[in-house]
Amino acid sequence: MTVGGDTVTEVVRLSWKDVRDRVHGRVLDGTYAPGDRLPRDEDLAEEFGCARSTVQRAMQDLSLSGIVERRRKGGTRVRRDPVTRATLDIPITRNEVENRGAVYGYRLIGLTTEAVPPPVTAKFEMAGSEEMLRVRALHLADGHPFVFEDRWVSLRTVPEILEIDLAAQSANEWLVRNKPYTRCDLRFYAMNADAETAAILETGEGAALMVIERTTWIGLDPITSVKAVTAPGYEILTRS
Amino acid sequence: MTVGGDTVTEVVRLSWKDVRDRVHGRVLDGTYAPGDRLPRDEDLAEEFGCARSTVQRAMQDLSLSGIVERRRKGGTRVRRDPVTRATLDIPITRNEVENRGAVYGYRLIGLTTEAVPPPVTAKFEMAGSEEMLRVRALHLADGHPFVFEDRWVSLRTVPEILEIDLAAQSANEWLVRNKPYTRCDLRFYAMNADAETAAILETGEGAALMVIERTTWIGLDPITSVKAVTAPGYEILTRS
Repeated sequence: MTVGGDTVTEVVRLSWKDVRDRVHGRVLDGTYAPGDRLPRDEDLAEEFGCARSTVQRAMQDLSLSGIVERRRKGGTRVRRDPVTRATLDIPITRNEVENRGAVYGYRLIGLTTEAVPPPVTAKFEMAGSEEMLRVRALHLADGHPFVFEDRWVSLRTVPEILEIDLAAQSANEWLVRNKPYTRCDLRFYAMNADAETAAILETGEGAALMVIERTTWIGLDPITSVKAVTAPGYEILTRS
Repeated sequence: MTVGGDTVTEVVRLSWKDVRDRVHGRVLDGTYAPGDRLPRDEDLAEEFGCARSTVQRAMQDLSLSGIVERRRKGGTRVRRDPVTRATLDIPITRNEVENRGAVYGYRLIGLTTEAVPPPVTAKFEMAGSEEMLRVRALHLADGHPFVFEDRWVSLRTVPEILEIDLAAQSANEWLVRNKPYTRCDLRFYAMNADAETAAILETGEGAALMVIERTTWIGLDPITSVKAVTAPGYEILTRS
């Protein structure tokens, strides 16, 4: 760039988003075809006149979106079999209700200490059973049933749960705010409402309901496993 | 570090994963509480004796996991309302079946050109209707119904689709491999099988079925919108 000379060449510094969009553009227009190896980061950095770390940041993003695959030694390739990758955020149920502009409500249905049954020990990947706190509760939106949760909480990992008034505050809210986890399994499926679930969710027996099961651990220690049965009409929507 | 001296202090270079785990550890043990502002990247870099870009990479990861929030001016904070964040990969249906160790099968059920009905124009966010290719097809796993898809393909955006033999190859496979998209909406919900869907999926009327709807665009142009109705027992599982 010559300032004061006849021509001023403007030097445009590309951001990592610019680099990402340019590389993505080349995937979209077929310059880089499925399975193709991309130029090395340093070569792209030279071509774009940016830092190598800028290219790396762009590639991380494209990799997270499922567009390219990065291997430590093998460089970067365009994914041969693209996947639709979605990021799903599951908020605290109170927030989910309030984000919809509805009034949140909560009702404790059952609170017991029980030996964990086999389907739940399997979810926790526990060798044997033990006593856990079982919390059954209903979340409401504008007074209507929204989510019915049947939850197990490890008394070994979370003994403090016994001091919480779970008639006033949901275990969902308390645990998410106070018990960060290091591992989380999520399972989504559809079920026909049985008589009890139908009664709690105020729907007909047999109604198709979406279920979200979530199991969390801190290290190897189980925290909680919850089966959240949503009311009819519940949808999960993601945009990317 | 003094080599040949009395003591040798080993200099351990922290990777971004080490930094991430240390910061995450401080969130887990409450050193950094929900809503707290974290030290600046440069201060953490100094504390950990690493490059600032290493701290940045660690923070990106913690931000993607929903543990911290980053703001350009506001620095980094521990999320006050943690969310459960899951990354969902939806592969090509053939791959999904084959990844389960089953034999993939495919049957074209219907191929027509029709004006797009209002529910589908709404998904595409189109102002009015137009003619699109409608493809109804069944994916099978070991000869059993796996996913029934009812799909609309834009003939304006993807005229080449008319040259593809959709009795031999699924539109799902062809589109995912050949038509990268820039935007994707995904919707998950449960439905009771109607008579026709029940017959196609070889289940009883009223069975609870998980539906995955996906709509894609390139720029502002619609590519495809598909309602994929899964067979009973279908589950989505993510681990993080």
